[in-house]
Amino acid sequence: MIPGPTNVPDRVMLAMVKPIINHRSPAFSQLYKGIIEKCKKVFLTNGDIIVYTASGSGGVEAAVTNIVRPGDKVLVTVFGEFGQRAAEQVEAAGGKAIVADAQLGDAPRMDKIRALAEANKDIKAVFVVYNETSTGVTFRWLRDLGKLASDLGAFYIVDAISILGGDELPVDELGVDICIAGSQKCLAAPPGVVIVSVSDRVKRYLESNPPPPRHYFNMPRYFKFAERGETPFTPALPLFYALDEALNIVLEEGLDNRIKRHKICAEAFYRALAAINLKPTAKEDVRSNVVLAFNYPPGIEDGKFRKLLDDKFDVLVAGGFGEFRGKVFRIGCMGEVNTPHVLTTVTAVSAALNQLGYQNSTAAALEEALKVLSQLNPST
Amino acid sequence: MIPGPTNVPDRVMLAMVKPIINHRSPAFSQLYKGIIEKCKKVFLTNGDIIVYTASGSGGVEAAVTNIVRPGDKVLVTVFGEFGQRAAEQVEAAGGKAIVADAQLGDAPRMDKIRALAEANKDIKAVFVVYNETSTGVTFRWLRDLGKLASDLGAFYIVDAISILGGDELPVDELGVDICIAGSQKCLAAPPGVVIVSVSDRVKRYLESNPPPPRHYFNMPRYFKFAERGETPFTPALPLFYALDEALNIVLEEGLDNRIKRHKICAEAFYRALAAINLKPTAKEDVRSNVVLAFNYPPGIEDGKFRKLLDDKFDVLVAGGFGEFRGKVFRIGCMGEVNTPHVLTTVTAVSAALNQLGYQNSTAAALEEALKVLSQLNPST
Repeated sequence: MIPGPTNVPDRVMLAMVKPIINHRSPAFSQLYKGIIEKCKKVFLTNGDIIVYTASGSGGVEAAVTNIVRPGDKVLVTVFGEFGQRAAEQVEAAGGKAIVADAQLGDAPRMDKIRALAEANKDIKAVFVVYNETSTGVTFRWLRDLGKLASDLGAFYIVDAISILGGDELPVDELGVDICIAGSQKCLAAPPGVVIVSVSDRVKRYLESNPPPPRHYFNMPRYFKFAERGETPFTPALPLFYALDEALNIVLEEGLDNRIKRHKICAEAFYRALAAINLKPTAKEDVRSNVVLAFNYPPGIEDGKFRKLLDDKFDVLVAGGFGEFRGKVFRIGCMGEVNTPHVLTTVTAVSAALNQLGYQNSTAAALEEALKVLSQLNPST
Repeated sequence: MIPGPTNVPDRVMLAMVKPIINHRSPAFSQLYKGIIEKCKKVFLTNGDIIVYTASGSGGVEAAVTNIVRPGDKVLVTVFGEFGQRAAEQVEAAGGKAIVADAQLGDAPRMDKIRALAEANKDIKAVFVVYNETSTGVTFRWLRDLGKLASDLGAFYIVDAISILGGDELPVDELGVDICIAGSQKCLAAPPGVVIVSVSDRVKRYLESNPPPPRHYFNMPRYFKFAERGETPFTPALPLFYALDEALNIVLEEGLDNRIKRHKICAEAFYRALAAINLKPTAKEDVRSNVVLAFNYPPGIEDGKFRKLLDDKFDVLVAGGFGEFRGKVFRIGCMGEVNTPHVLTTVTAVSAALNQLGYQNSTAAALEEALKVLSQLNPST
């Protein structure tokens, strides 16, 4: 139950052992083109899709280095570790990061962002971390921010690495120019590839403003090869097979159903742990449905708690990052998450806290969880 | 029988379906540290090992962007597509590529390289493509070139993507500072990760001359995380499992045995195809033992030949690159290559050529192949 990599269904794991084929063959083209078509349905975009053999951070680097040229201003939301890294990426590319920050546990609000935009009319791109894995906070104003980016004539880049497939993100409808998604989070594929959608507007921009040449993440090179269903560099074939099967599962479940399932499971967690007085790190209106962070009750030691959870209950949760280190634990509510996952995790958290001296009622927590989980489709 | 990705043993394929674990856990550290130790035995180095989730070209980018700063001169061997790409990488990083080129089918000779070095005493790095996959040529003077790099006080970078594990390359003994190897070539693992060895000298250089920050391939970041057995970014876990098992197989066979097997199989191919008058593209003293390119006899059409080979004989070979397109075919003699592979391929090539009107004796070709293959250990 960590915030990625998540559990991967057997079907997806087994897809990896399909035969190694030539990545310059029609069989690979067919696979890659299929992945691209399926991704378009999951991203809800008619734009292009690139699958990079790299981690999510590679996808962020792809977005930044293809768009940002020295001196360019980029408005970046920073409300945790991953926003901070994005701002540093912008600066590393020679750009200037205009930072819209927020206290940890909150997300920057639109009025603050609008004021920054007002003072910087020449912003070239807006970069938002949709879900800040480090704090369990989701930025809830993607539509408004897209409108603002559009008004500014700026590119709109959304880091959705940890959330795509687990919460709403209609890429074209929101005017997103570049959207980055991880394989190993809500899509429930293994780690190692990152999926990036790219709007026609970005494609046209790159034609007349080519990014640094010969760069592993150079988008125009990927577009050129994608025309014949290939990647410019040798792809991580087994992970492409796995992603393809993971996308099949997403489309079989239905994107709406999948998002609904994530929401219900998250709500079950929040309600169950509220019943035993655990407080989410995030403010209520920006609580994430895919990475849930909770403050420790006084006296509970992070390392001891997580080790007990792992050793005795076989449940893995993650610790905090940076300022939150030792102060919070984080539950991944991603991918295949379902009733048994929620109930097992709630039971384990409650029981472990009891063992460590924080008195609480496991029964009360489970009762709350079950109330919410009853909304799930019986078949899922 | 294409020049990578090669066939992958079942043991390695099955290793990929091991459970998805947290890449910030002791279990992952143990796996990664094991891979690093095994790689050191295969690279014959006491230096550091980085495993990047990326293609071989990503490994070249890692080498170049960590070493080359604007204005730096880099001597680059160019005798095919991959040398050309390396030279472009150097220029893209702001460096100046001093090109030691050679006609296609040959490799640059040491006298030419020495003359270039004489005229450019301030060379910062020497970059050599050990095996040029595009032409089937292996650069045979790695030791001399290492000596020259050492005399110049230059870093010595070897692109061994397609050859490491299939021919001699004692990294430390040859004074190699950075060596790049692909997973999907002679190591017979699936594609998607690239392994890079780094000398202490490079490590010390990077401490006082940090490369561009926040770059996906930034080496110091990998060194820092490697101290606790982690990668800075989410690794392609299934491919790490597979690489680990592929390295086990290399070490079980023994590196020397493996290289000897590649040599014998290559010799069997060269002798067998000589018996039916096929001419290698490469000059004899630079012929590769891992990627074998042959000129087509007059009148044989590339597409038709390779399609026939695939459809009727179930044997895949590759076509030529660039200037060699349509003129040559290339056989990968890599990884698991063994007697049945050689005999099947020789039979198929000979029979297909006969069908296309090039009269030749399959029996004569097989007789030559068998003579050479008798040198293989009976157990292999």
